[in-house]
Amino acid sequence: MTPSKDTVLCISLAGRPGTFGVRFHNHLYAQLGLDYYYKAMTTRDLPGAIAGIRALGIRGCGVSMPYKEASIALVDELDPSVAAIDSLNTIVNSDGHLKAYNTDYIAVRHLIEAHGLDRQWSLALRGSGGMAKAVACAFRDAGFSNGTIIARNEEAGRRLAGNCGYEWRAEVGDLRPALLVNVTPIGMAGGVEAQELAFSEALIDAARVVFDVVAMPARTPLILAAEARGKRVITGLEVIALQALEQFVLYTGVRPTREQVQLAVAFARI
Amino acid sequence: MTPSKDTVLCISLAGRPGTFGVRFHNHLYAQLGLDYYYKAMTTRDLPGAIAGIRALGIRGCGVSMPYKEASIALVDELDPSVAAIDSLNTIVNSDGHLKAYNTDYIAVRHLIEAHGLDRQWSLALRGSGGMAKAVACAFRDAGFSNGTIIARNEEAGRRLAGNCGYEWRAEVGDLRPALLVNVTPIGMAGGVEAQELAFSEALIDAARVVFDVVAMPARTPLILAAEARGKRVITGLEVIALQALEQFVLYTGVRPTREQVQLAVAFARI
Repeated sequence: MTPSKDTVLCISLAGRPGTFGVRFHNHLYAQLGLDYYYKAMTTRDLPGAIAGIRALGIRGCGVSMPYKEASIALVDELDPSVAAIDSLNTIVNSDGHLKAYNTDYIAVRHLIEAHGLDRQWSLALRGSGGMAKAVACAFRDAGFSNGTIIARNEEAGRRLAGNCGYEWRAEVGDLRPALLVNVTPIGMAGGVEAQELAFSEALIDAARVVFDVVAMPARTPLILAAEARGKRVITGLEVIALQALEQFVLYTGVRPTREQVQLAVAFARI
Repeated sequence: MTPSKDTVLCISLAGRPGTFGVRFHNHLYAQLGLDYYYKAMTTRDLPGAIAGIRALGIRGCGVSMPYKEASIALVDELDPSVAAIDSLNTIVNSDGHLKAYNTDYIAVRHLIEAHGLDRQWSLALRGSGGMAKAVACAFRDAGFSNGTIIARNEEAGRRLAGNCGYEWRAEVGDLRPALLVNVTPIGMAGGVEAQELAFSEALIDAARVVFDVVAMPARTPLILAAEARGKRVITGLEVIALQALEQFVLYTGVRPTREQVQLAVAFARI
């Protein structure tokens, strides 16, 4: 679409800007003929950046590490998705009024429904960082009460477990949860543990569903091992695509078709 | 050009954003394969907007009415083109350091040279607003010492004349200047004086060169009347194109060819 004086600008703020959002949003804008433009940014001055979003009429902002918690004090209104976990990933600017959302949380809530996960199932979630918080709170709020947070960081692990009414463990030990959820960088391309399994083969054997939040690659060693055993899987690509879609809807008011989203995801992954 | 995470953003700030800059800059970015994007904006919070330019790493900002003077206190460094007239129209952000320029002034200085205007000539300049200040100071600094500011607003007219060492008059009267310069909206499309001549036919007859800063249309009644008499003319389109080109060079470090600029101007005028 030819830029015009009325083009609506959306941005992202991240310590290390990635490519997915830029490609996903701009591809959908083009597909749908929307006069919008999406730009990835970083900042060393978060209050100045948020002031700029407000003053420059930037419509929306995706917020990534390390700004997800510090941004909260700088917006005007919190959606329940943010209040639930004290971490935002999306700011929507309506004529200078900034409302914060957490579309990671919203996306995981959707995926729990879409995949028909049973709240009676036991759950082990590995991780204790910001994304782990969003995912664990989504399970908690979906009614999953039998959960264990697996985290080497005892302090963060105990805190997150306490917030959710879950148990904390450093390792899974003798548990055999029905639902295995990885929210660590284990299995992420380029990381030191890229070839590692976030959960043992014995645990995968005993599980019903394996959910890996790592999106790069979509087929992590954990997902491949689960698929080889015929387990149902949920991939990080589903999370990243769905959270980006929810941002898109919040910014534009338009909900693309499933096919349009799939095309945008395929384009954005490259 | 497909947007990337590294796309460089330039913007404009104007009370009423226009289309010329958006179309001119984005067209040249595409022609030259530069990973840049230009977006027109407005604001109700100038300090917040300037803070945002700095914090968000926005590379450049074109500044129009009503922000040209109030912005000066918000930048880090003034180019001589700004210091000369106490009005900026361009901010360049180099890693958080904001330097202000006035490319209107720079453009008029260039045009005085390019058209071989003789500094011995007498000059009448109609107008006393912000743009009149840039144009009058460009003539002053180019060595034109025999000038008259024609302005209905006596206070602003006397002040500008005083700054330039020129005379002030409410009307041209019995003067027969060699150089007639219009820096008012007289002759501008859509204005109440769209059909008016900024200088009388007798004055045009007696002049050597007629310079109209009005760019819409490029051929104002004044320019048409001067051309009909075989006078050399300088149009507002030359000013707007040249000042935008100087912004482009400041933002990108790239100077397009004359042909590339002509294509961008032709595209942007539509």
